[in-house]
Amino acid sequence: MKTSRLSVETGRSRAIVDLTPQVRHFLKGEGDGLLNISIPHATAGLVLMELGSGSESDLWNRLDALLPRDQRYVHSHGSPGHGADHVLPAFITPTLTLPVLSGKVSLGTWQSIVLVDPNVDNPHREVLLAFLTDGS
Amino acid sequence: MKTSRLSVETGRSRAIVDLTPQVRHFLKGEGDGLLNISIPHATAGLVLMELGSGSESDLWNRLDALLPRDQRYVHSHGSPGHGADHVLPAFITPTLTLPVLSGKVSLGTWQSIVLVDPNVDNPHREVLLAFLTDGS
Amino acid sequence: MKTSRLSVETGRSRAIVDLTPQVRHFLKGEGDGLLNISIPHATAGLVLMELGSGSESDLWNRLDALLPRDQRYVHSHGSPGHGADHVLPAFITPTLTLPVLSGKVSLGTWQSIVLVDPNVDNPHREVLLAFLTDGS
Repeated sequence: MKTSRLSVETGRSRAIVDLTPQVRHFLKGEGDGLLNISIPHATAGLVLMELGSGSESDLWNRLDALLPRDQRYVHSHGSPGHGADHVLPAFITPTLTLPVLSGKVSLGTWQSIVLVDPNVDNPHREVLLAFLTDGS
Repeated sequence: MKTSRLSVETGRSRAIVDLTPQVRHFLKGEGDGLLNISIPHATAGLVLMELGSGSESDLWNRLDALLPRDQRYVHSHGSPGHGADHVLPAFITPTLTLPVLSGKVSLGTWQSIVLVDPNVDNPHREVLLAFLTDGS
Repeated sequence: MKTSRLSVETGRSRAIVDLTPQVRHFLKGEGDGLLNISIPHATAGLVLMELGSGSESDLWNRLDALLPRDQRYVHSHGSPGHGADHVLPAFITPTLTLPVLSGKVSLGTWQSIVLVDPNVDNPHREVLLAFLTDGS
């Protein structure tokens, strides 16, 4: 199994980061198999979505409705609203698996692989890539 | 890795489509391994749920509460409410992986594999099936 | 592919159960590969989250907002609010896949693998573990 650990700078604001170019680079020259992407963090998630047409702010808007950034959370430390960040991975999964054919990850025209990081207290994130091939 | 591309007609209304029979057919005669199901579309998702007892309308009801079909979305084109469709895959994942034993996908008695397609502008959908076996 | 079927007692109250110790035990002595965890039940889900700091009750609080435990559901039988349980797996996925390196599941410091079971009518649950190795 081929693996790689990406370092992603998400900064001090909440961030939606496109991981697709790094994923494509990781798979270059590989064959068929399954790619798993996972985040070893308890306050971020992964999404397949269209970027660049406004859905980023639409997603934050809906997340703020589901997980208001206020003081209601029992788990509360760090910046205001951080309690919401700890609930996020229940709804926005931190692990995704995708098929790979001839070294190309199978995505639709409008899909990008993105890291959703609402956490303003953690400017550095890691993403694990693991490619399990069928050996052919 | 064995793969197949299903064509699914979802029509001009929002649709919940049972993919289980086609998945079972795809796996017939296979051995043990992992099955990945993914949708190369930015406005649909996959769910494991019980069908035929009313949960379909319950799901639409709760999705409408989380993602109201109105004009609030920055990403707005197509039919009213289409902005909501673009946020859906953040909450309803477009990729699922399930274990397969002796060519049978492991599902509970009440679980079906379903495509959730809120998008009324796209009557045709594709679903990718990829089965990675352990070779035994 | 190595598999195991865990029996989990979730009791007559809604429950968040840490599966991490059993997952680690299952993988002991294994090599590299992908671990799939799935629940053959239509009213429970799996989450990677931090335990022990209050996020458990924060998660229930937010689930109750998204899926109110009242009589609004078409699918209604069993205890009050059970209709909500049938919608839960659309939002809280019942299947997760994680990379395994040298027999160790890749989790972050604050991540646990947990079963989220809102269903008070079903005190016993099964969890399927399936480990697909690369054979090395």
